[in-house]
Amino acid sequence: MLTDTTEYALRAMVCLAIVEDEYATSVTLAERASVPAPYLIKVLQQLAAAGLISSQRGLGGGWMLALEPEEISLLDIIRVVQPIDRVQECPLGLQNHGKNLCLLHKTQDEAARALIEVYGRRTLGDVLNTRMNKPLCDATQTARLQISASKAKRGGGRSK
Amino acid sequence: MLTDTTEYALRAMVCLAIVEDEYATSVTLAERASVPAPYLIKVLQQLAAAGLISSQRGLGGGWMLALEPEEISLLDIIRVVQPIDRVQECPLGLQNHGKNLCLLHKTQDEAARALIEVYGRRTLGDVLNTRMNKPLCDATQTARLQISASKAKRGGGRSK
Repeated sequence: MLTDTTEYALRAMVCLAIVEDEYATSVTLAERASVPAPYLIKVLQQLAAAGLISSQRGLGGGWMLALEPEEISLLDIIRVVQPIDRVQECPLGLQNHGKNLCLLHKTQDEAARALIEVYGRRTLGDVLNTRMNKPLCDATQTARLQISASKAKRGGGRSK
Repeated sequence: MLTDTTEYALRAMVCLAIVEDEYATSVTLAERASVPAPYLIKVLQQLAAAGLISSQRGLGGGWMLALEPEEISLLDIIRVVQPIDRVQECPLGLQNHGKNLCLLHKTQDEAARALIEVYGRRTLGDVLNTRMNKPLCDATQTARLQISASKAKRGGGRSK
C-alpha cells in the first residue's frame, strides 16, 4: 500500500542512518537508494521541511539526520509523504453518521490503526541494530556508500 | 492509505449491494457514491474485468453485482485497483537478502498482513447487514437511489 514516494523516503532515511553524523550528497543517496536523483531531492526537501533531516550547502555538504535513528519511527517518515490517519468521523460528511461510523469506514479505521501500530513501533535504529539483514545492504554497496560519505566529511565530496 | 480510486471502488460496490439484483446506471451510481461519472466508469470497468460486477447495455441496463454481497470481501474490491501484497522476497533484488528480509521489508510485510486480515474478514454483506449505520446512507439519499434503481428495472431508467 506504500506509494513509490514513501518507499523512496524510507530508503533515503535508512541510507542517512547508515552514515549517521556525516553529510551524504544527493548523488550518493540516489545511487544507494536506487532512486532517480531529481525525484529523491523533492523527497529530501519534504523530509527536511518536516524536521527529520537537515542540509548543508556547498563542498562537503549534503543531507544528515536531524535526530537520532532511535528517535525516528518508520511511521514518522511515512507520514511526511503519505497520510495514515484514523477515521474518527464520517469522511463523507453524512449528517446522520458523524462519529457513528458505518462498518465500511470502521473497517478503514481499523486498517489505519493497524498500520499506525506496525510502523509506529519500529524506529530507524531498530531496523539497523538487528541481527537480521541490514536494509539496502549488500556488502559491496554498503562499503561504497561509506567511502563516499567519508570523502564528503573530509571535504572531498560533491556538493548537493 | 487507500487511494481515491480505491475509495470510489468501495463506494460503488456498496451502492450496487444496496440495490442487489437490479441494474444501476453509471449516472445513478456516480451521484450516490459522490464520484465524477467518467472516473467512476473506469473503476466500474476494472471491477467488471475482475468479475465482481456485470453490465447490461441499453435501456434498463447498467451495472449489477456478479456475486452475492456475502461472497465479496472488501479486500477483493481493493485489490482490483490497488495492490496489497505480502513481501516474501527482497523487493530490491539484493542477492544476499532473498527471502531473508531486512527489518524494513519485514515491517512492510507485517503491515500488508495486517491489512489483508482487516479487509479480508469483512464482506459487502457484513457492512450492510449490521445494526450500525449503513455505508453511504442517509435516509433521503438511500430512498433516491432505490427509486432510481426501481425505475431502471422497469425499463424507465437511463442506459449506461
